[in-house]
Amino acid sequence: MANRVLYDLAGADSTLRFSPYCWRTRMALLHKELPFATLPWRFTDKETIAFSGQGLVPVLVDGEQIISDSWAIADYLEQTYPDAPSRFGCNSGQALTRFINEFVDGVVHPGMARLIVSDIPHVLGESDRAYFRESREKRFGKPLEEITSNRDIEITAFRRSLEPLRRVLTKQPFLGGSTALYADYILFGAFQWARCTSTFELLAEEDVLFAWRERMLDAFSGHARKSPCR
Amino acid sequence: MANRVLYDLAGADSTLRFSPYCWRTRMALLHKELPFATLPWRFTDKETIAFSGQGLVPVLVDGEQIISDSWAIADYLEQTYPDAPSRFGCNSGQALTRFINEFVDGVVHPGMARLIVSDIPHVLGESDRAYFRESREKRFGKPLEEITSNRDIEITAFRRSLEPLRRVLTKQPFLGGSTALYADYILFGAFQWARCTSTFELLAEEDVLFAWRERMLDAFSGHARKSPCR
Repeated sequence: MANRVLYDLAGADSTLRFSPYCWRTRMALLHKELPFATLPWRFTDKETIAFSGQGLVPVLVDGEQIISDSWAIADYLEQTYPDAPSRFGCNSGQALTRFINEFVDGVVHPGMARLIVSDIPHVLGESDRAYFRESREKRFGKPLEEITSNRDIEITAFRRSLEPLRRVLTKQPFLGGSTALYADYILFGAFQWARCTSTFELLAEEDVLFAWRERMLDAFSGHARKSPCR
Repeated sequence: MANRVLYDLAGADSTLRFSPYCWRTRMALLHKELPFATLPWRFTDKETIAFSGQGLVPVLVDGEQIISDSWAIADYLEQTYPDAPSRFGCNSGQALTRFINEFVDGVVHPGMARLIVSDIPHVLGESDRAYFRESREKRFGKPLEEITSNRDIEITAFRRSLEPLRRVLTKQPFLGGSTALYADYILFGAFQWARCTSTFELLAEEDVLFAWRERMLDAFSGHARKSPCR
């Protein structure tokens, strides 16, 4: 086993990797030029990552270190490899990135979920499919298909909620400024989650966010673009 | 006249300074420890600042330099006085601050305006009062009193829109991390705008944002707290 391993949420097709949080970590590792292997993990594989003391991915095993939670991993990588390219710029940059993290977790993810959640079971294996449907229908209080049934109308409110991001990206190519930083990977993880699980188009082609997403798909020799999607 | 002068929006009482954008600049100047004088300015005083090539405050005159627009002023101060304490941490920090700037301009200000806009004419002199009512009623498409008539109910949605900020401030004392940075001044400007013009309470006492606002009011020896408010 490689010295650095990322436990990464996978679909029935084990090459399909769709967790928005795992994508944050993956892009962060690429940015830091730290080689890593990935291991496909499924929602119902709780035992496989029990050694991390919790039940969610990403889990990063880095030599002797075991770290879970995407923000904790980002922080760990910054502290442990200060000479590798920073994804925050400076300590203040890391603190300022927190707001983008919370905005994506609290506004972008929930808004996006209401548009794509019924598509996700189609990429899952049998036991994950049952787990996902049951847990998410409990969370939303209705069948997955009902959540997304109005998506052709609700897309308008979703796109409107992205307006502050759009206004930034009319002034600079990345949330991080002239180059992509962890802030960009946080937001990109959300779009890659949708891209890997759904064919529902979230952005209009003329949207500056669409062009930004293209730049992110091109990053690291097109790593995310080449990754299997639905 | 002092060597560094800020044209600052004032009420009928010329010591009442209530522009959210001017507050950003004022806190930025204090942070950078740059002495400055202020000149009270009113909405209808367009001629007084015509020399700046536009009609809005803040306008900063710094020796020979004339700069308008709060973001442009923040950028100018950072470039011109790199040895004074940074309000961004680093270039990446400045780029990352843009998202907070756009979120406050695009989400916090409009949400707050719907709760306090009818209180603002009460602090204005006669000609500004007429100008303000006419321009804002045109913008909103209804009388000011009608905009705020449901504020006891709409406050709930406003407070909910602040949730990503709240989540950051449960993890660190300031948006900038362990100390206040320009990101904090951007958000604080909005609350100081409300504080100076309205007695309607925007935050619950148990809200972490309430405690954060107290810390901001205490900054620079209580500068904002001592500033006249309605």
